[in-house]
Amino acid sequence: MTEASGVRAEGGVEKQTAHSPAPFTLAVDAMGGDNAPGIVLAGLEMAAIRHPEIRILLIGDEKVLNASLTNYPKLSALCTVRHAPESIPMEMKPTAALRVRGSSMRIAMEAVASGEARGVVSAGNSGAMLALAKIIVKALPGISRPAMAAVQPSARGDVVMLDLGANIVCDARNLVEFAIMGEAFAQAALSLKAPSIGLLNVGSEELKGDERLKQAAERLRDSVLSDRFYGFVEGHDITAGVTDVVVTDGFTGNVALKTGEGALKLAFGLLRSVFMSNWLTKLGYILVRPGLRRMKEWIDPSRYNGAVFVGLNGIVVKSHGGADAEGFASAVDVAIDAVENRLNDKIRHRLDQLGMLGQSGENKEQE
Amino acid sequence: MTEASGVRAEGGVEKQTAHSPAPFTLAVDAMGGDNAPGIVLAGLEMAAIRHPEIRILLIGDEKVLNASLTNYPKLSALCTVRHAPESIPMEMKPTAALRVRGSSMRIAMEAVASGEARGVVSAGNSGAMLALAKIIVKALPGISRPAMAAVQPSARGDVVMLDLGANIVCDARNLVEFAIMGEAFAQAALSLKAPSIGLLNVGSEELKGDERLKQAAERLRDSVLSDRFYGFVEGHDITAGVTDVVVTDGFTGNVALKTGEGALKLAFGLLRSVFMSNWLTKLGYILVRPGLRRMKEWIDPSRYNGAVFVGLNGIVVKSHGGADAEGFASAVDVAIDAVENRLNDKIRHRLDQLGMLGQSGENKEQE
Repeated sequence: MTEASGVRAEGGVEKQTAHSPAPFTLAVDAMGGDNAPGIVLAGLEMAAIRHPEIRILLIGDEKVLNASLTNYPKLSALCTVRHAPESIPMEMKPTAALRVRGSSMRIAMEAVASGEARGVVSAGNSGAMLALAKIIVKALPGISRPAMAAVQPSARGDVVMLDLGANIVCDARNLVEFAIMGEAFAQAALSLKAPSIGLLNVGSEELKGDERLKQAAERLRDSVLSDRFYGFVEGHDITAGVTDVVVTDGFTGNVALKTGEGALKLAFGLLRSVFMSNWLTKLGYILVRPGLRRMKEWIDPSRYNGAVFVGLNGIVVKSHGGADAEGFASAVDVAIDAVENRLNDKIRHRLDQLGMLGQSGENKEQE
Repeated sequence: MTEASGVRAEGGVEKQTAHSPAPFTLAVDAMGGDNAPGIVLAGLEMAAIRHPEIRILLIGDEKVLNASLTNYPKLSALCTVRHAPESIPMEMKPTAALRVRGSSMRIAMEAVASGEARGVVSAGNSGAMLALAKIIVKALPGISRPAMAAVQPSARGDVVMLDLGANIVCDARNLVEFAIMGEAFAQAALSLKAPSIGLLNVGSEELKGDERLKQAAERLRDSVLSDRFYGFVEGHDITAGVTDVVVTDGFTGNVALKTGEGALKLAFGLLRSVFMSNWLTKLGYILVRPGLRRMKEWIDPSRYNGAVFVGLNGIVVKSHGGADAEGFASAVDVAIDAVENRLNDKIRHRLDQLGMLGQSGENKEQE
């Protein structure tokens, strides 16, 4: 299968491939998240209705899972249960989590590493997940730092942002890798043929970014990605949707993501108090309720649930620990899209074009 | 005058001082900003009505200013014009701006350095302003890095955030200095007696911040600021108002500020389209309009205009270049509050308590 065969037309739903994607298996950590396994099973049931063609390898406490599965007929029809004697608590440190040999999360990762599953979805401890993914699923050749990517709402449509917290300190090479992975992710997840890429910076000339950013920008301008590279963007450009992809280090990305979510929450909180002031404003609320619901749904975090640890030898999707069943189903959708639209083939192709495929960049240019 | 004499009671307006503050002069760069000097003069007229006790040293093109002042009687009554043959363009690089000897911005800074004025307000080029302030007004003894601080809206009231872009790369000592300056700023600008201080970080244990942050947190916990120091906060905690002060490096602070503003803008844009959908929603809009206006005013950027370059031997206030007259008047209010509530005395007092007064921290612990 060639790289191009999986690319969707911009904005379209129709695939350019003549054949349907082959059925594949996703490994699911049934024990991860605040309300596991209940929410996981309910979310998988939704996913099973939407995607009857996939297979689920459901990993966790066999007895509990088999007892619960009777309530989820669609899921039962396409899943196999694999026992895991242990699970990783949400607060466990990654170093400790790596030592839990029989955890559901680890066994799920091993299914990807062996080729049995094409991807893994977990709502568990994200630090443990990243650590296990790096050790068991392993980084793609040429990628020194897998990153956390997700889709965010903007005024002009969805925007891919990375890194959202996997790498606190990043050098220029890491940022170039993020740009490659962000482009591929936007192609696979948003069906964009030629996504534009922005590098997050502080704007004014005099307050301009540090050397890493200048170097990363220079390399992107001089590469095959030059026609995708928009240049520097600022914080407000993320929600304005100035570019389809926003690249930054994991510290800044995590802060920006959460600050944006916090500001939206503030706006909705204020709005609620405006509508609840008196009977006239309550009447006003009734008149705009349908539109407000659509607006809330549009920027609803559960619709955007499912961050991808990109740059690994398999698709690794993290669902929010507190996500509801609908949110977990969204995370499964993200994993299916990434497999079907060949996210990793796209990344490999770019690394090859950029001559980065053979290099292990790890720590090479670390500050 | 002692340190305590200027402290206001928490939430109160009444001063603990028995005497009114002595009249003082603010130097104003009349030529800075997108619509100078028109907006500057109109803003100063508003400020003159609110604060007839202050004096303004108005610096810029003498002919232009004298001709315009006839339209601003309240301002004319309390201002002196000083000629500056040049002004600094908004896009000029700081290094070039430093060489313009006769610029209005420079002459304003010199008035502060000589003691003629207690503070300066400019809507001009912020990089030039920071560079000139450092060279002419100079850092307070014990402060290695002046920072940019401003007040932001949150669900629980106003929050002081710094650094907003003056220092792209910061070490642990810089962050401790920002905490000291942030505490003093919250006392002076928000009338809080014991503001709480948070250090911005990424939250999850496994994704925790780097060494600088851990060191800064340790020093704050072991200092006289320990009862003010809340610990680490995350992006969403800024708008939630978890702490009164949020400390971070200038890169992250600038991105967080602009991302939050962008998200609020996105919310208002979506809201507008909801209200404009049809005649029923338009009727709904009419019913909630007064509340919406109050909400918009509350988070209106012009109400929050006026960032302070803290840590200098004088009060240096930057108005947004595109601010309207109301916004410029807010920036003047910020300068007056900082002078009257003895911002710099509070900073000096803390530096003294922390044994940092004599040290010039510059580059000492630079990474």
